[in-house]
Amino acid sequence: MQSPSDPIGEFDLIQRFFKTGAQAMPSHSSIALGIGDDCAVLRPVSGEELAITTDMLVEGRHFLTSANPDQLGRKALAVNLSDLAAMGAKPLGFTLALALPKADAAWLEGFSKGLFSIANEYSCALIGGDTTAGPLNICITAFGSTPTHKAIRRSGAKVGDDIWVSGELGDARLTLAALRHEIPLPESDQHAIEHRMHQPVPRVELGIALRDLATAALDISDGLLGDLKHLLKQSQVDAEIFLDQLPKSAVLLKQSEAIQNQFAACGGDDYEICFTAPSHQKNTIEQLSNSLNLRLTRIGQIVTKKNTEANVALFSADGKPLSDADTKVLMKSFDHFAS
Amino acid sequence: MQSPSDPIGEFDLIQRFFKTGAQAMPSHSSIALGIGDDCAVLRPVSGEELAITTDMLVEGRHFLTSANPDQLGRKALAVNLSDLAAMGAKPLGFTLALALPKADAAWLEGFSKGLFSIANEYSCALIGGDTTAGPLNICITAFGSTPTHKAIRRSGAKVGDDIWVSGELGDARLTLAALRHEIPLPESDQHAIEHRMHQPVPRVELGIALRDLATAALDISDGLLGDLKHLLKQSQVDAEIFLDQLPKSAVLLKQSEAIQNQFAACGGDDYEICFTAPSHQKNTIEQLSNSLNLRLTRIGQIVTKKNTEANVALFSADGKPLSDADTKVLMKSFDHFAS
Repeated sequence: MQSPSDPIGEFDLIQRFFKTGAQAMPSHSSIALGIGDDCAVLRPVSGEELAITTDMLVEGRHFLTSANPDQLGRKALAVNLSDLAAMGAKPLGFTLALALPKADAAWLEGFSKGLFSIANEYSCALIGGDTTAGPLNICITAFGSTPTHKAIRRSGAKVGDDIWVSGELGDARLTLAALRHEIPLPESDQHAIEHRMHQPVPRVELGIALRDLATAALDISDGLLGDLKHLLKQSQVDAEIFLDQLPKSAVLLKQSEAIQNQFAACGGDDYEICFTAPSHQKNTIEQLSNSLNLRLTRIGQIVTKKNTEANVALFSADGKPLSDADTKVLMKSFDHFAS
Repeated sequence: MQSPSDPIGEFDLIQRFFKTGAQAMPSHSSIALGIGDDCAVLRPVSGEELAITTDMLVEGRHFLTSANPDQLGRKALAVNLSDLAAMGAKPLGFTLALALPKADAAWLEGFSKGLFSIANEYSCALIGGDTTAGPLNICITAFGSTPTHKAIRRSGAKVGDDIWVSGELGDARLTLAALRHEIPLPESDQHAIEHRMHQPVPRVELGIALRDLATAALDISDGLLGDLKHLLKQSQVDAEIFLDQLPKSAVLLKQSEAIQNQFAACGGDDYEICFTAPSHQKNTIEQLSNSLNLRLTRIGQIVTKKNTEANVALFSADGKPLSDADTKVLMKSFDHFAS
């Protein structure tokens, strides 16, 4: 029940922007009950597993205060779909918890428009949520399905496997550097790459195709090298990465070699998939790259574990290993509490 | 990777307080993969449905800045378990997304201790999460199971059904009033009821027992009357509620009748279950109350819908209907954006 002075109450707000949009979506047969009860109810298809991921986006940390709400709505779901993709899961549904400083109808209209546009694109239904007043915070939990035992884990990489990455790396970081005036970037270059920061494309089709190809996979949100270490740790292996092989856009290739390597190897917000596969799958993966029209690049290989800590040996273009000092400078991965 | 000036990095922090606790928990056979990958993986048991709920708790809105982190950890999961209970679902697992102003080890130790204590109590495993810097925000998404078609929805109430409520109502609101110095309360009274605000008990056993008894149910988080309207709307019925039947604690009964009615009927944070059942189930429900050692009170009945809007007719102790003006004063339900 809203007070007279309140232009838009919580229930009205949810109803107007989210419930209507949720009901307009094509529903999966496995969603027995969607938004509007104490819980949503999923009735999983026999022989399928459910992959579950949660991501919290905070104003000033994951997006700028000036962020376009439409783009933000898309990105909030995209980063979760990227996690589903890394498991080889097909999107099914999601819950949205939203803290808002005020019930701003214009912002909500833009946000829900962007959110439902990507939700519809990937047939991922809004099945539940919570809305409250508070500093802007967007928490989405997404659900996807894989056939039983087909989810791609981080723990399956084997010595001798190739390491692959999708798309191009470092453009989101370069966009941020330009926005922060750390690096001057011609307007045309900025326009060419800024969608990589604001509108990451979850590699859902790739993830599904990798179920029978990849031995391990993860999505790169905090920078390739930092994230790769999680995969190495869980697989109990080490890696060799060839820095000159990292896929870079034409715009990033105009920067100094130091910036190129730093941003491609350690820049955050890429939302590409890094995966490992037996070397005999090379041709199949190249064919997949063609059929998906998505760059897939072999960037290194899995080697035997040396020490307790997961180790990534980096090689420069001349085939020489990077010195410890150079590696240290390069590997300043993204830590939400350390920056 | 943490910077030298950072006493505790994000990954260390997650590892120390949450991953270790999560791994120490007894695991369900349906959890194929827990915390530590891009996604958790659930392998639902054949013949079972999955109930899913999400709740976001914001500092200053859902809890005071001075809140004890141990109690807060318990409450954050309890409010989600309460939603599962309202569906008749058995807790299975949950994800935790946490925004923290700083990585405060003492706070995290208390919070995770409380969280895992209730998680263990209800065998609800932490299966995934996200941690970031930001204004304190706790978002939990919880999963529970029910046999197929057994989830208790809000939409099943029928004309002639009795309306029941568990426990006692209004004590959380009275505690808040005392903390805010709106109502003076002797210290002994405050001690007797404050756990009702800080440590709500999710009615999980009740919910499971109601699968075959209740026609509809919901949990009361925003006040009985406001929440009941959601049930009425979805069931396309109206309700009659007898104010003098609302279950009140000995402490609340010391307050004026106006306060008693206002807090019991409309106070937030009760986390009791309101449910409807055919009148012939009265004895069975009373037996259930005995076996669960939990007060279950018949507070009204479902009647035929009169208008477009869901309507709750209130009756005072003398059996007379409350005037529209009196009803309006009473029914100031809790709206996160209207207060």
